[in-house]
Amino acid sequence: MTIQERARGLVEARWFERFIVTVIVINAIGLGLETSPAAMEQAGGLIRRLDQIAIAIFVVELALKLFAYRLAFFRNGWNVFDLAIVGAALVPAGEQFSVLRALRILRALRLVSVVPSMRKVIVGLFSAIPSIATVIVMLLLLFYISAVMATKLFGTAFPEWFGTLGASLYSLFQIMTLESWSMGIVRPVMEVYPWAWTFFVPFILVTSFIVLNLFIGVIVNAMAEATDEEAHDEREMIIEELRALRQEVVALRDRGQP
Amino acid sequence: MTIQERARGLVEARWFERFIVTVIVINAIGLGLETSPAAMEQAGGLIRRLDQIAIAIFVVELALKLFAYRLAFFRNGWNVFDLAIVGAALVPAGEQFSVLRALRILRALRLVSVVPSMRKVIVGLFSAIPSIATVIVMLLLLFYISAVMATKLFGTAFPEWFGTLGASLYSLFQIMTLESWSMGIVRPVMEVYPWAWTFFVPFILVTSFIVLNLFIGVIVNAMAEATDEEAHDEREMIIEELRALRQEVVALRDRGQP
Amino acid sequence: MTIQERARGLVEARWFERFIVTVIVINAIGLGLETSPAAMEQAGGLIRRLDQIAIAIFVVELALKLFAYRLAFFRNGWNVFDLAIVGAALVPAGEQFSVLRALRILRALRLVSVVPSMRKVIVGLFSAIPSIATVIVMLLLLFYISAVMATKLFGTAFPEWFGTLGASLYSLFQIMTLESWSMGIVRPVMEVYPWAWTFFVPFILVTSFIVLNLFIGVIVNAMAEATDEEAHDEREMIIEELRALRQEVVALRDRGQP
Amino acid sequence: MTIQERARGLVEARWFERFIVTVIVINAIGLGLETSPAAMEQAGGLIRRLDQIAIAIFVVELALKLFAYRLAFFRNGWNVFDLAIVGAALVPAGEQFSVLRALRILRALRLVSVVPSMRKVIVGLFSAIPSIATVIVMLLLLFYISAVMATKLFGTAFPEWFGTLGASLYSLFQIMTLESWSMGIVRPVMEVYPWAWTFFVPFILVTSFIVLNLFIGVIVNAMAEATDEEAHDEREMIIEELRALRQEVVALRDRGQP
Repeated sequence: MTIQERARGLVEARWFERFIVTVIVINAIGLGLETSPAAMEQAGGLIRRLDQIAIAIFVVELALKLFAYRLAFFRNGWNVFDLAIVGAALVPAGEQFSVLRALRILRALRLVSVVPSMRKVIVGLFSAIPSIATVIVMLLLLFYISAVMATKLFGTAFPEWFGTLGASLYSLFQIMTLESWSMGIVRPVMEVYPWAWTFFVPFILVTSFIVLNLFIGVIVNAMAEATDEEAHDEREMIIEELRALRQEVVALRDRGQP
Repeated sequence: MTIQERARGLVEARWFERFIVTVIVINAIGLGLETSPAAMEQAGGLIRRLDQIAIAIFVVELALKLFAYRLAFFRNGWNVFDLAIVGAALVPAGEQFSVLRALRILRALRLVSVVPSMRKVIVGLFSAIPSIATVIVMLLLLFYISAVMATKLFGTAFPEWFGTLGASLYSLFQIMTLESWSMGIVRPVMEVYPWAWTFFVPFILVTSFIVLNLFIGVIVNAMAEATDEEAHDEREMIIEELRALRQEVVALRDRGQP
Repeated sequence: MTIQERARGLVEARWFERFIVTVIVINAIGLGLETSPAAMEQAGGLIRRLDQIAIAIFVVELALKLFAYRLAFFRNGWNVFDLAIVGAALVPAGEQFSVLRALRILRALRLVSVVPSMRKVIVGLFSAIPSIATVIVMLLLLFYISAVMATKLFGTAFPEWFGTLGASLYSLFQIMTLESWSMGIVRPVMEVYPWAWTFFVPFILVTSFIVLNLFIGVIVNAMAEATDEEAHDEREMIIEELRALRQEVVALRDRGQP
Repeated sequence: MTIQERARGLVEARWFERFIVTVIVINAIGLGLETSPAAMEQAGGLIRRLDQIAIAIFVVELALKLFAYRLAFFRNGWNVFDLAIVGAALVPAGEQFSVLRALRILRALRLVSVVPSMRKVIVGLFSAIPSIATVIVMLLLLFYISAVMATKLFGTAFPEWFGTLGASLYSLFQIMTLESWSMGIVRPVMEVYPWAWTFFVPFILVTSFIVLNLFIGVIVNAMAEATDEEAHDEREMIIEELRALRQEVVALRDRGQP
């Protein structure tokens, strides 16, 4: 057994996976404790030390995997995902960049890439995308068209909500989620443009219908996979049974012939 | 090959469709850039020129299709849709009408009429309408009845929300979407009419139930089409197999007879 | 043909149904116009006259049906519904009762009892009730328990929202619809009772889950009816075909015997 | 018949169940009336007396069940649930603890443990949990990660919403329910951090998608159970029929042989 094979055996071992999961969970709890000033005062040094140990373990883990799989390592999307997350931790952040420090908790997402059942859920989500891609493109198109129109129609009078294309896109997203769409936005707009509802009410109806279609796409996908498998197998069995029967009958006829 | 056949060949060519899609996308981006004062200052002339070129291309495209299909052109709803959108761009708008200028972005909707997979989604949406038409009529009836009642009951005290039939319809639509229905509208109304909740709470429950039925109508429709096809084919196959088998048996019996 | 049979023939005729639908629609439009002061000023007399004519027609229609069906008239729920609505219009309201006058528009609901396809939708809704009755009772139980608790816990500090059982029930309904639940109600409550979220967040999660189960009950019901019919028929056909085949085979064996 | 068997016969009798249901309902109504000062003034003594009688009945009921089933009593989760709820009523609360007094209405939940059809719904809810456990864990993970990030990014500027991990979790739950997410929280945050939408909009999209997957998990589960049973039985019947037929044919052939 070469060293490479041994490394592969190690990183594929059940206990190794469990160990890494434990490290991820402890690391996530530590990063959560960092948000508590009281905890940092009492045990700040320990928490930071644990974080460094966790990063060291992740680096060793990925180095082992790289050594075990060589270039095949990069063919697995989850490995690339792990590498990016752990790599980001090694960038000399300069403790002043609070955004970069906040992103460190994303390391907890490694739980998804390590636990197989979660990986399966994510793969399932992505597998639904092709069947709903067209509907997503149509939703984006509708958003773009509506944002351009809203900017041109209401941008001058309501610069905060519809002043730029970006502001309009955000406001329309808010309206699509139905949050304060009427009392917060459309009623004030209607005081200046009394016919504004002819723009917003159809927008709400059409986006609701498109989002409903997105949902149906995902549901039908999940359904077809889940419920049909067994029924399909039983029908296959019926067909096979029928063919066997026909052969019997044919055999019966052939034997009867001279 | 006549000129007409050549024109038809041209407008049905794959590259022609792709070219028109490209023009639509570039045109849509240009119309989006018009909302940015910075972009207009730097490249306003170019953006306006590109818009004119795009319109010219659309006019030529539709002229070609009209020439290629003659009256059959009008039998296809998508062509009529394209003609209306492009025709609207040719109306001498007088740059002062900001509404008409805002509507020009609707040209991006041509993407739907040109890309087959999007056309299919839209056709699918419309095909669901007959099965839910009755439910839609009932929803409209409920809205009309509720608006008349709300206007008569609360119109005098709350003219802004329920002063006219139109205002009531809009307010009830807002209430159906559950936006600020209680804190924004029903609680203030209940300070004057303490029993107002006997009108609004049932309205919310009934509209929710009707909308749920709309959803179910659409879902069941989509489902029945999606999941049953394969199962249906397999059952058809079983039935055919059975008939073949019976013929075998009948043949066997007939041959055995004197 | 007796007069009773003739009356039955009349009220069951296609044109009679259409005539009544027309009267209902015209009546509903008239009652809608009553909300417009401008319309009432111009044509108030005509609108009131049309309303009286419509009521007269409804009275004659129901009298005819009563005469045609005698006591069987009351066995049909839709007839009782019509009788109640039309009867309410004959109560000498005293034009001062604005509530009673507002209820007159409920007459437009007769459209549902007259048009068969709408009647079918309503019957469908009611047929789903038994399968979801238990879940509805549980939702009501949860509401009652939560309202009693909320009144006892928060009633003293927030009398407007939780002062009485009725106020609590209304506020909890608002919270279930997620309208302003946090910014409007729970955040202010948490300023007095910091642990209030332990009551409201589980309430939202549990009601959402119960409502989801209501939805699923209705959907599964609709689904099972819609999609299975055809598949069931095909399977029945397969079974029949199989039985015929077996009889053939049995006949073959019997004939072969001495 | 031993006394134990008699006790078992008693607690399993139909009338006993109905009697307990009646006591629970009366007790719940009484506890509800306690929230009304008017009712307490008029009949406070009677209401408190009824409550004590109800508790006494529950204690006797549970004592009987304990005597009838002995240790097997504790193997049934519903019995443990009943014991906890009734036991809590016996703790000497000291009338000053309003929270403990408010919790007494939880006794009405015993309705669920006594009525079999409700028990079935709850068991059904729990049976769906394994199939959605992974998705729930992922939702919790996403919430934890987002809360840590939100606390680090926005905690200093908005201590009320994102000051601690707990505050962030609550605010993110509110944002997930879409309540005032934009007007109430994200727009104010964006005035300080203009890029805050890059955190909140993806958070809304991802949580919506995960919650949709929770829904689908529950729906597919319910569906597969509900609709497939009958079809499965019919297919089983077809297969049996086919096997019988094949035996016939085989018998036919064997008999024909010398």
